Amino acid sequence: MKIITLTSDFGEADHYIACMKGVILQHAPDVHIVDVAHVIQPHDVVHGAFVLRQVFEYFPVGTIHVAVVDPGVGTRRRLIAARYEGQIFLAPDNGLVSLIHRDFKIEELRSIENQRLFEEVVSHTFHGRDILAPVAGHLARGTRLEAVGPVVAELEILNLDRPTALPNGGVEGQVLYVDRFGNLISNISEADLAADVGAARGLNVYIGPLRVGPLQATYGEVNPGEIVALIGSTGMVEIAINQGNAAAQLRAAPGTMVVVR
Amino acid sequence: MKIITLTSDFGEADHYIACMKGVILQHAPDVHIVDVAHVIQPHDVVHGAFVLRQVFEYFPVGTIHVAVVDPGVGTRRRLIAARYEGQIFLAPDNGLVSLIHRDFKIEELRSIENQRLFEEVVSHTFHGRDILAPVAGHLARGTRLEAVGPVVAELEILNLDRPTALPNGGVEGQVLYVDRFGNLISNISEADLAADVGAARGLNVYIGPLRVGPLQATYGEVNPGEIVALIGSTGMVEIAINQGNAAAQLRAAPGTMVVVR
Amino acid sequence: MKIITLTSDFGEADHYIACMKGVILQHAPDVHIVDVAHVIQPHDVVHGAFVLRQVFEYFPVGTIHVAVVDPGVGTRRRLIAARYEGQIFLAPDNGLVSLIHRDFKIEELRSIENQRLFEEVVSHTFHGRDILAPVAGHLARGTRLEAVGPVVAELEILNLDRPTALPNGGVEGQVLYVDRFGNLISNISEADLAADVGAARGLNVYIGPLRVGPLQATYGEVNPGEIVALIGSTGMVEIAINQGNAAAQLRAAPGTMVVVR
Repeated sequence: MKIITLTSDFGEADHYIACMKGVILQHAPDVHIVDVAHVIQPHDVVHGAFVLRQVFEYFPVGTIHVAVVDPGVGTRRRLIAARYEGQIFLAPDNGLVSLIHRDFKIEELRSIENQRLFEEVVSHTFHGRDILAPVAGHLARGTRLEAVGPVVAELEILNLDRPTALPNGGVEGQVLYVDRFGNLISNISEADLAADVGAARGLNVYIGPLRVGPLQATYGEVNPGEIVALIGSTGMVEIAINQGNAAAQLRAAPGTMVVVR
Repeated sequence: MKIITLTSDFGEADHYIACMKGVILQHAPDVHIVDVAHVIQPHDVVHGAFVLRQVFEYFPVGTIHVAVVDPGVGTRRRLIAARYEGQIFLAPDNGLVSLIHRDFKIEELRSIENQRLFEEVVSHTFHGRDILAPVAGHLARGTRLEAVGPVVAELEILNLDRPTALPNGGVEGQVLYVDRFGNLISNISEADLAADVGAARGLNVYIGPLRVGPLQATYGEVNPGEIVALIGSTGMVEIAINQGNAAAQLRAAPGTMVVVR
Repeated sequence: MKIITLTSDFGEADHYIACMKGVILQHAPDVHIVDVAHVIQPHDVVHGAFVLRQVFEYFPVGTIHVAVVDPGVGTRRRLIAARYEGQIFLAPDNGLVSLIHRDFKIEELRSIENQRLFEEVVSHTFHGRDILAPVAGHLARGTRLEAVGPVVAELEILNLDRPTALPNGGVEGQVLYVDRFGNLISNISEADLAADVGAARGLNVYIGPLRVGPLQATYGEVNPGEIVALIGSTGMVEIAINQGNAAAQLRAAPGTMVVVR
């Protein structure tokens, strides 16, 4: 059974996502539809790109990921089909797939243009339902990727700040993402630390001006209510409050400076 | 694989929806369960009816839709099974199915009364779990629709205002629904405009006293932050703010007047 | 098709749940994944235990329930596999499964320790993805329960107050859970009433100092906006406001005293 995942900013109170599921099931009745997340912040392409980047590695070869965070729907922005290690991504060309490309390099990139794979009537404002859902359904039933449209050379890249090495050693980055628990996930990866500062375990982590202390293994190494820094399950430096909400208590948000040194 | 969709106001933090899924899977282990939306506003039958009306057209023949927004549970209100073009709707008879009936005409309507299709113990307060879920499971496994109970002549109709033609030309309606993006979806359909005012593209749209301007094709035809009117993906006149929230910024809500003239 | 249910406090905006689904589908491609609830209050083991307790009885033999509310992740708390009447529960040993054990008695309890069933790399902070998801996948594909690890004698029990008999007759308990509708579900079961006070229908229910009146059959037996007490669909004494929100209007919450006498 083929897997199609859905990631969007459509929320969960409206009809949008179910319309997409219905269209997919019309084309591919025996597909396994997996909801990734539909409460991506409205129009927040970075949030969508981060979630998609975190998720896809855990899915099997053959999975088709449909992502719709699409403030430019109906304008001339492209819709793209991207392939990496046997998985396919269908999304507007607005950066949604670019974090995967940055870290892994997309192997095949096409512009979705073949109208024979679309719904008969295509609205100007809901390409998820009228283009991406039926294209996903066709691909799940065996239509080859080259049928969707011509190869294109480049995709839109999100212009995200990367961590930088500090002159006296250490790395400066920032909070990239805040999860439901209020954990502050930075843009500093384990690899950034290894390359730049060697034995990172001996170093201190700072969030804004606040010294958190050295990297720990898990939240529970500090008492409930205490602040802790660690390499989280995303592979990134993360600042948390054990059983608390670091974002709320530290008034931190995406963009807040994080330093390891 | 048969499809059963679920629409409800049960929210997503409680056990209610999963209980229904468990019951369905006990009766029909190989069914495809599709969540439509469970954060319908509590007791808001209009919200549920709107979502169901928008969604069903995109599902294949044979789909069974279960809808539970049921403030009258346990009182003498009926539970009904309705059929339209090979799809079946199971719901309390409180208007949930009536927007589909208004626009398409239900072909067969029955009162759900056959207790042999119910759970052994039926609570007074959760007929979704104890009646609708097992009935859906039985139907998915091949029980014929006539087994659920006798034909009834009429279903409860939601008393919704329809748009009216204005004396000097044009149509006056109102906001019917606000989606997650704050887009204001009116009760004025493309058909209402065509019948009443001819070449609608040359007309102006007003929300309350505010002139929005002529109908555009998509959100992106105005700059981010600017207001736009268009025929949305629902086929209705819609007022939006490109990449903004029209409901919040214009203080509009269901009931706010919309005029096209 | 095997069923795996997922219950967690991961919310619906992040990548966590989809990562678990991907891992499960890598191990067991043809499993039926059912979301129970992912907006369990962060770290609220009682909330998770209540939902799991309510839900599992409605699922068929063979179902595997994975529950992750895990404030102690990465510390020495155990992960357990519990069996009851042909269903299996995988969860941290922090009380999540204890309400089922209290009411039904777990038949087999094992500590999850067999690393050959885990992901190759196990993070310190996401055992749902790296341990419980692959173990569930293995079990769904036929791995026997004894393979997960050794039998253990006891599981962690939630220390919840039980209702007590009053000296002059009647039962005193408290609000255990508030659902989306604001209905106040107490810890007083129908059985508590039968054993302690006989013909409960003639008795009065009190929430805090407020006399609600005798038990009714359903919400609609009082007018909209009026308060009502009944045996809810959970089998517990419940206080509600018909089509209103009892928790908000009565300022009641988990812990508020409920008396039937």
